[in-house]
Amino acid sequence: MRRIERSDIEEIALGAALLGTGGGGDPTIGRLMAETAIDRWGPVTLLDPEEVPDDAWVIPVSAMGAPTVSIEKLPSWREMDAVLEDAQQALGRAAFATMPIEIGGGNSMLPIVVAARRGIPLVNADAMGRAFPEAQMVSFALDGMVTRFACLADEKGNRVTIRTPTARWQELLARPLVDAMGASAMVCDYPVTGVELRASALGGTVDLAQRVGRAILGRSSHAGDPLAAVLAETGGFLLLRAKITDIQRVTVGGFARGSVTLSGIDEDRGRTLTIAFQNEFLFVHEDGRPVAMTPDLVALLDRDTARPWTTESLRYGMRVHLVAMPCHPKWRTPEGLRSVGPRYFGYDADYTPIERLAKEAA
Amino acid sequence: MRRIERSDIEEIALGAALLGTGGGGDPTIGRLMAETAIDRWGPVTLLDPEEVPDDAWVIPVSAMGAPTVSIEKLPSWREMDAVLEDAQQALGRAAFATMPIEIGGGNSMLPIVVAARRGIPLVNADAMGRAFPEAQMVSFALDGMVTRFACLADEKGNRVTIRTPTARWQELLARPLVDAMGASAMVCDYPVTGVELRASALGGTVDLAQRVGRAILGRSSHAGDPLAAVLAETGGFLLLRAKITDIQRVTVGGFARGSVTLSGIDEDRGRTLTIAFQNEFLFVHEDGRPVAMTPDLVALLDRDTARPWTTESLRYGMRVHLVAMPCHPKWRTPEGLRSVGPRYFGYDADYTPIERLAKEAA
Repeated sequence: MRRIERSDIEEIALGAALLGTGGGGDPTIGRLMAETAIDRWGPVTLLDPEEVPDDAWVIPVSAMGAPTVSIEKLPSWREMDAVLEDAQQALGRAAFATMPIEIGGGNSMLPIVVAARRGIPLVNADAMGRAFPEAQMVSFALDGMVTRFACLADEKGNRVTIRTPTARWQELLARPLVDAMGASAMVCDYPVTGVELRASALGGTVDLAQRVGRAILGRSSHAGDPLAAVLAETGGFLLLRAKITDIQRVTVGGFARGSVTLSGIDEDRGRTLTIAFQNEFLFVHEDGRPVAMTPDLVALLDRDTARPWTTESLRYGMRVHLVAMPCHPKWRTPEGLRSVGPRYFGYDADYTPIERLAKEAA
Repeated sequence: MRRIERSDIEEIALGAALLGTGGGGDPTIGRLMAETAIDRWGPVTLLDPEEVPDDAWVIPVSAMGAPTVSIEKLPSWREMDAVLEDAQQALGRAAFATMPIEIGGGNSMLPIVVAARRGIPLVNADAMGRAFPEAQMVSFALDGMVTRFACLADEKGNRVTIRTPTARWQELLARPLVDAMGASAMVCDYPVTGVELRASALGGTVDLAQRVGRAILGRSSHAGDPLAAVLAETGGFLLLRAKITDIQRVTVGGFARGSVTLSGIDEDRGRTLTIAFQNEFLFVHEDGRPVAMTPDLVALLDRDTARPWTTESLRYGMRVHLVAMPCHPKWRTPEGLRSVGPRYFGYDADYTPIERLAKEAA
């Protein structure tokens, strides 16, 4: 148990945005929301999964939709109240705590807002260990747990509760709903008990995000510049020093989809890499040869500050470092790869861990 | 109060299909479902609106989606149980009775199935006096009543409860949901008290459907052949004796949309009329000149039997009588026409009542 104070927020937001692998929401908006919430309602208690009672309910809160929209259509605590209250109603039980469903510059911050506002603890865990674009891509579904319901709310006063036989059906119904709500909405899904949380969630990831954020800000115990500290903290690899020379991006079907072209600079001059994304970076290739791929984490960091860029903020001409980091081992199992591996997203490649791809390239 | 027996079903189904103005579901499937329900669970009590206690709740049940799909993906009483139970849960009250939300060969029958199965009465009323394609096109919304919620269910076990500030938002959220559920789903929406029912519903429309059905079947007190009896019963007009010479139909966005071309035969040889439809027939024109239009009722009747054809069953070469009938006066008010008039559906024409259009044409 520890407290999350205002001074922790910037570090968590920045680190979460990096681990959000291009998605998970904008860290500046997320930071401002969480800082405001702590100013207004006080600091937040962070519990490790082991500190949650067996039969206590943890209800995750997140934003769902296209990040290209959510940077303009900002969430309010009114929708957060609405989804949490609807979830408690559907559950017939009060939330003992909340948690992030994924790591991201926005989706790591929203549960802090909810925790501060409602006076409940935040759990030091999430269900992805990164951000993924679709609702069924959670450790809870991977571990075969039932999806009890999802509650959605928007700023127009629309409130929806969905009960589906599978997590995949939850995505298939929630996505067009979110699109109809304006391509961004607040969600409570996958409420879990303390027992279920410990059996399936990825623990310690709020701490991890903060350590990565400290590395970016030069406050890390790791030696070297911010980039070196980030790579040391995450076990990551620098794949390319580059300039963004093309960006294709459309907001469609409740996602931001597209690709970004990176042209090497400095030592990497002459190389051209392409990253395809669906909210998150998914597949990096160089003339068709895979360079990094989902479920491993891919990030574009500002060349000078090592701050992460999200897919909706990429612009022509930006100087970036392309880095990739190993994902949680859960996603590297056959079941994990069926759920979030390259073939699920339509890329004709067998999954190869970033450690091996980076070694082959070197 | 009267009883609906097995022997009443064919008449109600046929008459409702005619008043369904091309939509509202297939009368043969509807008839078989209702007859089976009465065989299995017994006859149904039909109450006039005046017989419903002031504070008793009436919960409508209907199918929503594209009729091109619902003729193949048949509803089951499992989904009817699901939506009714979810609606009672959301309301916190039991259904005293059920009712059709619209008139149609399917949507007049489903509430009979529910009434028989659950042992509750059916109310002799509906909220359109015909069928309309969109959820907000109900007298309850026209009269400014709040939409409390809509419950949806499909055969896969998906169950959704939607709360929206307006009936229009209910349509905007329910339509993509129904599409994701497979373009056809069961719905409970617009629960009303006895007081609200009497203030807004269109009373007597189950009786009306049965009288029209009796006319089609030659059992009417009206003189003449079935067509003449139908026109006498509905105040309708014969607009064209025709052969179907073209049919364009796509299932898109949760609707069956398209147009049908009618080439005159017999006394009408040489004339060509086109009807545009969105589940229901909406706009009939001859070389751009309006011949009949929403919210008045349009029907295509078999030339020999006067049985109605629904938009999803139209085929090249069919011999038909095009008829049109005045709608309920509620829809002819400025508010009614804003909601369901030709301009709402994108037709560049001011509403002209069928009585005047038919007189001008004669």
